[in-house]
Amino acid sequence: MKLKYAIIGAGAIGGYYGGRLAHAGSDVHFLFHSEYDHVKANGMRVDSVIGDFVVNPINAYKSTADMPKSDVVIVALKSTQNHLLPDMLRPIVHENTVVVLIQNGLGLEGELAQHFPHLSIAGGMAFICSSRVGAGHISHQDYGPLTVGFHQNAQADVLAQMKSDMEAAQVPFIVAEDLNVARWKKLVWNIPYNGLTVALNTATDVIMRTPSSRQLVTDMMEEVLAGAKACGANIDPSFIDDMLSMTDKMTPYSPSMKLDFDNKRQMEIRAIYSNPIRIAKESGFYMRKVEMLEQQLLFIQNRMNG
Amino acid sequence: MKLKYAIIGAGAIGGYYGGRLAHAGSDVHFLFHSEYDHVKANGMRVDSVIGDFVVNPINAYKSTADMPKSDVVIVALKSTQNHLLPDMLRPIVHENTVVVLIQNGLGLEGELAQHFPHLSIAGGMAFICSSRVGAGHISHQDYGPLTVGFHQNAQADVLAQMKSDMEAAQVPFIVAEDLNVARWKKLVWNIPYNGLTVALNTATDVIMRTPSSRQLVTDMMEEVLAGAKACGANIDPSFIDDMLSMTDKMTPYSPSMKLDFDNKRQMEIRAIYSNPIRIAKESGFYMRKVEMLEQQLLFIQNRMNG
Repeated sequence: MKLKYAIIGAGAIGGYYGGRLAHAGSDVHFLFHSEYDHVKANGMRVDSVIGDFVVNPINAYKSTADMPKSDVVIVALKSTQNHLLPDMLRPIVHENTVVVLIQNGLGLEGELAQHFPHLSIAGGMAFICSSRVGAGHISHQDYGPLTVGFHQNAQADVLAQMKSDMEAAQVPFIVAEDLNVARWKKLVWNIPYNGLTVALNTATDVIMRTPSSRQLVTDMMEEVLAGAKACGANIDPSFIDDMLSMTDKMTPYSPSMKLDFDNKRQMEIRAIYSNPIRIAKESGFYMRKVEMLEQQLLFIQNRMNG
Repeated sequence: MKLKYAIIGAGAIGGYYGGRLAHAGSDVHFLFHSEYDHVKANGMRVDSVIGDFVVNPINAYKSTADMPKSDVVIVALKSTQNHLLPDMLRPIVHENTVVVLIQNGLGLEGELAQHFPHLSIAGGMAFICSSRVGAGHISHQDYGPLTVGFHQNAQADVLAQMKSDMEAAQVPFIVAEDLNVARWKKLVWNIPYNGLTVALNTATDVIMRTPSSRQLVTDMMEEVLAGAKACGANIDPSFIDDMLSMTDKMTPYSPSMKLDFDNKRQMEIRAIYSNPIRIAKESGFYMRKVEMLEQQLLFIQNRMNG
């Protein structure tokens, strides 16, 4: 089975994974906006710790209306743009298309499913350090594994082929048996560090070496575990220690939300905070400190938007 | 009964009330530090909306060791200095002295009682806008009522005389029947606004007109009411609406903690946050959002102290 891929959001994440697939010979079609003319002329350049390459010529498009129907659509937009997704997807999905949302947070697959109840929808989590450093130019600094699991209408054969294609493209690929657990596990780290680096205007290392904020991180991780449990996702409490130890060992780090804040971009508050808080509350657990962070982030975003 | 007063902390609060008493003819003795030489030479000046005056000559001292034993000691230090209080008080208290802590927060009378189990200890709350504008120079902009109630070893006759002296000095004076209730009621306002204006680096009006922070204020007030209730202080829920309405009508306001933060002074985190949180927790209620604010303030104080 030869899969046709569409990449919606060819930035640091989508550009890297799509670029790897194209470079390895897969049939990949990229949606670009402002970078379209540049990549048509120069291709898309990826500087990577595991080998640089350029995708040139590249199957680039300015609108999904011009793109072919695809077997796998990889969505790597920022979740703040997901309200645009239904209209963008309609021209490129067929009856058996698998749409993979490689995005932060919780509840995004469910939102999409309300528009496409019969669509095969999966969620993906990228464990990677990469960034867009210029027009059609991506820098991949470290890591790279991709974890994908189905939200609804699973198609195991397509996912198996995608895994095979990714591995042929030097991308370690993990099939998540339970997307809900995988998403909540990622939130254990994302919820405290994304928001607190913004609210306290600092980096992970300062948070970790200050006793009161380190305790606050731990309190929030415990709330996330309790929220996850209420939602049927059991995570062993030792996972909190694992996340704290990992963060202790990291070099000072600004999570994606802190980079958004520093660059005065919209923050992914809904996907990372509002959705998990609401979903946990509906299942019976109220993450109070997490909600307070959401309230502070909404205040900060509101002030930033003027 | 002619009372001898000692004023410990002759700043915006202690200087105003002590100055009013002295100006009206009470026997008042003031402890000064850096301002001692200035007030000895020039007296203490109070510019007040209800009439300016100068206390000159003034009974000024550089150490409580030189002060007479007093019947009423008014402590108006910032609570961050209360660790110095036991040694400061010893030379000036006699068997029947009443010590009144006109300070923010909760639990300070109890801490003092551990050092002086037989002392008559009261707590006071000032509803006043005043500030120290120069050496021995206080500006009183608005309000002025003083509410005082006993913590232990009540001496109703001394308090009645103090009320009489204060009223003769143009200070409205309210005897609180239940200090615990009065202190918790003051916390309903102080806890959300003091800390949030620092954590969000803003003023009361911006907090009130932003939906998410207005909701956060309400959430915290509800926590404080529940904490108060656990501690035996019943406050009617309508008090929350009263506080919100009052704050809506206020001109943009920076609470004392915000002024401390802006001027890089120590914040009264222990009295306004740590003590109420601990006392409520010991009585069975966990104020989670209030605790998160405490954790953030400790982080901010820690960063400020370098």
